[in-house]
Amino acid sequence: MRESKKIPLYERFAQELEEQIRSGTFPLGTRIPSIRESSERRELSFSTVLQAYRVLENRGVIEARPQSGYYVKLQPKKQVPEPDFEPLQGIPTSISIDEVSLRLIHDTMNLDFAQFGAALPDPALLPTSKLNRILADLAREGMFPHDQGEAVEGREDLRIQVAQRAFSYGCDLSPSEIVITTGCNESMSLCLQSVCQPGDLVAIESPTYFGILLALEALHLRVIEIPSHPRRGMSLEALRFAVENHPIKAVVAMTNFSNPTGSLMEDEDKREMVEILGAYGIPLVEDDINGELYFSERRPRTAKSYDKEGLVMLCSSFSKDISPGFRIGWVAPGRFKREVLCRKYATSYRTSVLPQLTIARFLESGGYEAHLRKIRRAYSQKNMLMSQAILTHFPEGTRITEPGGGFVLWVQLPGKLDSMALYHEALKAFIAIAPGYIFSPTRKFDDFIRLNAACWSDKAEVDIARLGRLVKSLLGRKR
Amino acid sequence: MRESKKIPLYERFAQELEEQIRSGTFPLGTRIPSIRESSERRELSFSTVLQAYRVLENRGVIEARPQSGYYVKLQPKKQVPEPDFEPLQGIPTSISIDEVSLRLIHDTMNLDFAQFGAALPDPALLPTSKLNRILADLAREGMFPHDQGEAVEGREDLRIQVAQRAFSYGCDLSPSEIVITTGCNESMSLCLQSVCQPGDLVAIESPTYFGILLALEALHLRVIEIPSHPRRGMSLEALRFAVENHPIKAVVAMTNFSNPTGSLMEDEDKREMVEILGAYGIPLVEDDINGELYFSERRPRTAKSYDKEGLVMLCSSFSKDISPGFRIGWVAPGRFKREVLCRKYATSYRTSVLPQLTIARFLESGGYEAHLRKIRRAYSQKNMLMSQAILTHFPEGTRITEPGGGFVLWVQLPGKLDSMALYHEALKAFIAIAPGYIFSPTRKFDDFIRLNAACWSDKAEVDIARLGRLVKSLLGRKR
Repeated sequence: MRESKKIPLYERFAQELEEQIRSGTFPLGTRIPSIRESSERRELSFSTVLQAYRVLENRGVIEARPQSGYYVKLQPKKQVPEPDFEPLQGIPTSISIDEVSLRLIHDTMNLDFAQFGAALPDPALLPTSKLNRILADLAREGMFPHDQGEAVEGREDLRIQVAQRAFSYGCDLSPSEIVITTGCNESMSLCLQSVCQPGDLVAIESPTYFGILLALEALHLRVIEIPSHPRRGMSLEALRFAVENHPIKAVVAMTNFSNPTGSLMEDEDKREMVEILGAYGIPLVEDDINGELYFSERRPRTAKSYDKEGLVMLCSSFSKDISPGFRIGWVAPGRFKREVLCRKYATSYRTSVLPQLTIARFLESGGYEAHLRKIRRAYSQKNMLMSQAILTHFPEGTRITEPGGGFVLWVQLPGKLDSMALYHEALKAFIAIAPGYIFSPTRKFDDFIRLNAACWSDKAEVDIARLGRLVKSLLGRKR
Repeated sequence: MRESKKIPLYERFAQELEEQIRSGTFPLGTRIPSIRESSERRELSFSTVLQAYRVLENRGVIEARPQSGYYVKLQPKKQVPEPDFEPLQGIPTSISIDEVSLRLIHDTMNLDFAQFGAALPDPALLPTSKLNRILADLAREGMFPHDQGEAVEGREDLRIQVAQRAFSYGCDLSPSEIVITTGCNESMSLCLQSVCQPGDLVAIESPTYFGILLALEALHLRVIEIPSHPRRGMSLEALRFAVENHPIKAVVAMTNFSNPTGSLMEDEDKREMVEILGAYGIPLVEDDINGELYFSERRPRTAKSYDKEGLVMLCSSFSKDISPGFRIGWVAPGRFKREVLCRKYATSYRTSVLPQLTIARFLESGGYEAHLRKIRRAYSQKNMLMSQAILTHFPEGTRITEPGGGFVLWVQLPGKLDSMALYHEALKAFIAIAPGYIFSPTRKFDDFIRLNAACWSDKAEVDIARLGRLVKSLLGRKR
């Protein structure tokens, strides 16, 4: 149904128009042709143009002004140069997280700093008032009769909501296939515990999410890094080579809008990845935490939706869109559900009932889709604005990803500048960033930084300018 | 200060009087001598007698009737025969949890069954209405600004409350030494991960809490069972022999009112255990989840309070007294705090903020002590009533522990009856019990069952009678 590889007409037209806007044809604040005008001039149907304009509105490129028409909301920006991609084959390695990385955890939680470090959502974009209303309802009803005898797999009402949601994006799960967890980190750790023994080899993206490296170290697992393209995600050629040549026991991949690069695997690539791994019986731990935060017209699929063997373990959470402090995630562990439940019982035992209940109510209430539309639009714009600010304030030669979802930017510094040096200088200036250093066990990305665009604001622009000056000064010192 | 080993006068008098009541000198419902009478006859001060009567009131042995005096509330019961204790030296073994044990997890969560299985508190003894009030306050204030940037170690207000509480029972901790967790299971798993590598040997009590066996299996740790006396806890002689003869990397002990036996280590024994382990530099994971549920006049100490080396990792939670569904626990990991934080980050990342905040408010409100007094009294009575019902309805030869705290009874069936057979028969009769089978990796306690006394009620008496008939019938079949 959703697998058509042809780009729809309205999307093609939207892309063309966006390119014109970016190139400066329609500068900031100008009115673009009306729907009728575009429809006549470009020989497109009225509804195709209307849809294209909506896409661009969602992406924050144009805005509708009542009784007036559509206006450009974006500054034309320079072409964004994409970061380097070196598809070097990895070798098995063990992980050793050092003190520096652990310091980062604390620095990226310090609210005294300008927080480009942690990948936390914008607090203003959480459904705060609605959650408070639900809380008040629960207090009035007396939620605590609900508090007894909850199963290890979590509340059924929440599992039903997760299954309904997954169905809406083409991933058929029954509530009984889902286990509620204390966030996506726990989901992934449970999956790895369920399919690996200490010393086993796990294939990961390179670069990869820092938290997964911590989990792998804690579980005494070794890793092999699979080069991941900053736009297209894990290299299937490299993956194929790795599974053919190494005793890989599991693969971890963030298929949609990865952390830190924001890369998106094409659905066709996901299907192929499932095929490759299926041939070897290797489980895939799929991290889909950003899957709902897409900026285009349709939600990207999951690898799980192509899985017929129960080998894909789909992990996600509500930490990016509803509340990071609730610690509610979930996993659909396929054929490994029994093992996952057993590991869960052995650690957190059950997931806290109150936040489960609150989120179930929120999802049942029907406002979730509208909430997601709102935050997708907002993050799309924040990404774009931060990207433009970086291009403006960072020196020539800086390269940036242009993710199609999520809210982190992966920035390659010019002149092989050491991101740890920048990290320390930035801390002195009360700015927290995540140095590339922590996203690879073999330190492959020392000249990269990851910036959180979620907190974009006028104040943030000032901080990005200050950060840009620090980069320039370090670069000057180096030369 | 609190280390006097002499039993105070009032306690000695209380014990004597209780013995008289149990032996039938004062039958159920009779009035016992007034305070003045006892004081004169026994040549004790008025306040000593008063204190002794209060102790017995707390234990549910007597009750005060206004304008009338003190009356016996207890049926005289037969002497409770204590279960066997065989101090056999253990040998290192690996753990393999089987399907049967996993089924139990589900059966003990099924609310259709008479639930003597899980060690869950009585829902009626949780501070439900107060928690609902706090929830309503939080909703009104809008709790969600609190929801950002929480550190891995948990909310400071809650850590302060935990530290104040620990101070009150002679365990000096600063808030910065405490890490909030998703319950006591997580606390213990984090501790074991922090001090052990896969394959390492851990000394455990025998019998021991089922959940810790699951955790040890998940972490690929081997165990050696240290015989634990049903009343006095872990045998120090056996522990000393074990650490002298095996490369033990950690010890796990439930020093106060252990699960399943309800045993209590004397404070002096705790001090000695800390000394033995300190000499070998072996960390102790101390599970104090039942520490507050004591029935005597004073709270037993923790091994942690004797620890000068930072080797004791004290674990507890609010699951027994405030809410099992909140999943809020804590750990004071001594010198291993950095490792614990690192493992926490790698799994549940942070602890859910809302339940942390609710519990911190509850503790700050000052009603905690009164709440604890109430539930201690209630569980003391429930234990006693269930114990009497078992003696009444189970066949001759049944042996039962008489714990000084907590709410589980450890019952030895007569005639080496197989508890798994009873377990299956009971399930058919919609009664869930925990068979001794699951409390030892070498199945040492097949003729034991653990019964949860928390749910004691008139209905429960009927179920205990039914269970007793099943025991008799199985015993008859066997002969």
